[in-house]
Amino acid sequence: MIPKDHPRYRSLVTRERLAACAREGVVTLEGLTAHGRGEAFDYLIGERTTESALLAERTAAAMLLSARSPVISVNGNTAALAAPLLDGLQAASRARVEVNLFHRTEERMEKITKLLESAGVGVLTGRAEPLLPLSHARALCLREGIFSADTVLVPLEDGDRCEALVSMGKRVIAIDLNPLSRTARTATLTIVDELTRAIPNITGACEKMGPGEGERLLSSPDNSYFLRAALDEIRGNLEHALD
Amino acid sequence: MIPKDHPRYRSLVTRERLAACAREGVVTLEGLTAHGRGEAFDYLIGERTTESALLAERTAAAMLLSARSPVISVNGNTAALAAPLLDGLQAASRARVEVNLFHRTEERMEKITKLLESAGVGVLTGRAEPLLPLSHARALCLREGIFSADTVLVPLEDGDRCEALVSMGKRVIAIDLNPLSRTARTATLTIVDELTRAIPNITGACEKMGPGEGERLLSSPDNSYFLRAALDEIRGNLEHALD
Repeated sequence: MIPKDHPRYRSLVTRERLAACAREGVVTLEGLTAHGRGEAFDYLIGERTTESALLAERTAAAMLLSARSPVISVNGNTAALAAPLLDGLQAASRARVEVNLFHRTEERMEKITKLLESAGVGVLTGRAEPLLPLSHARALCLREGIFSADTVLVPLEDGDRCEALVSMGKRVIAIDLNPLSRTARTATLTIVDELTRAIPNITGACEKMGPGEGERLLSSPDNSYFLRAALDEIRGNLEHALD
Repeated sequence: MIPKDHPRYRSLVTRERLAACAREGVVTLEGLTAHGRGEAFDYLIGERTTESALLAERTAAAMLLSARSPVISVNGNTAALAAPLLDGLQAASRARVEVNLFHRTEERMEKITKLLESAGVGVLTGRAEPLLPLSHARALCLREGIFSADTVLVPLEDGDRCEALVSMGKRVIAIDLNPLSRTARTATLTIVDELTRAIPNITGACEKMGPGEGERLLSSPDNSYFLRAALDEIRGNLEHALD
């Protein structure tokens, strides 16, 4: 339906994909609005992986590879946008994948698990317990998954959950296009990049990690460096935007 | 459900309202994503009416009051967010209101018309004709409404329609939180402010317009001034955002 030469082709196709997933119940209506916020920040960042984001992605790879028990926490938007890419990241990083939803229902858990499995992703299953310091269903996770993880990759996560994981002493890697969000500020490492660009970059960095490179990357700049770098990119882009 | 003291109360209530309207078919799934983009830009602008936006709103009032035939073009998001506010603006500006949808179906036209009418807004009805230089259903409008208007207020409009109206020689007033959007750049006057702040401000300016004030406002800065002022606000806000 969308012509391939449309200047916003990629963005429109992604939006249609998310709308289709919302009709199927994989993505929530709130998830669509959240995607719109991400679109705006991606527009401001220039819809490309910046140099500092690439360094964050390589650092994320080093964190995942050096982890004792890495877990990727997947929500509806992430599954809808990146299920096939998570297959590659799981293989390259040896991370386990757990579905963890802000708007959690058994029906959505099942739909998202199926979507991931059909893309080749191995998904942790079992009886979820209220193990996270969050209220109601948001406390639920798997004992052998997120609860036991030392490092958790949380793409597109909300601030409360990110804070809860950090408060449990975990190293949290966030993928978030808004460098000012609570998630971005709270995470151990924030990748300010679009999900479907970030994941293949982390996967590639895992696959190509040279000897000693991981150690060097793990001593790379702290999170505030990455947030400041993203803000500087946005400010630079805005400076000449109307010329 | 949402506690009144939540720091994001207003934003969350608005989001719930839009999600409810999406379930009723008033707002489209694409409309939810578009709202998310607006949320991001509103966050960057500081979620308040800037001085330059207030000047744009007073200028918009002068344009509407001096128009021969002013029309407010209303889409799903606008109706969902601002139906009661449009009643006041219509009374103060003497503008006619026409429903005009990007994703046009008879069912949505009816639902949105009813929603507006239940808020007291008088809505133009009749047989729409393909009078706009746009493809398919997007060309449809009323001969005695948008087609004959000399000044059209288009809140939350897409770039194509804004361009089409300008190409027909109309004065177009846009309300758009993204100062870089095609709509914002194409309109005769762009109000970079959130819809439910902008509309009451325009209404208030219509009601309080003093003698000679309209003429002075109509010779106010051109649109690029307002866009640059909005960008400067955003850049200024970003400068100290992480301090």
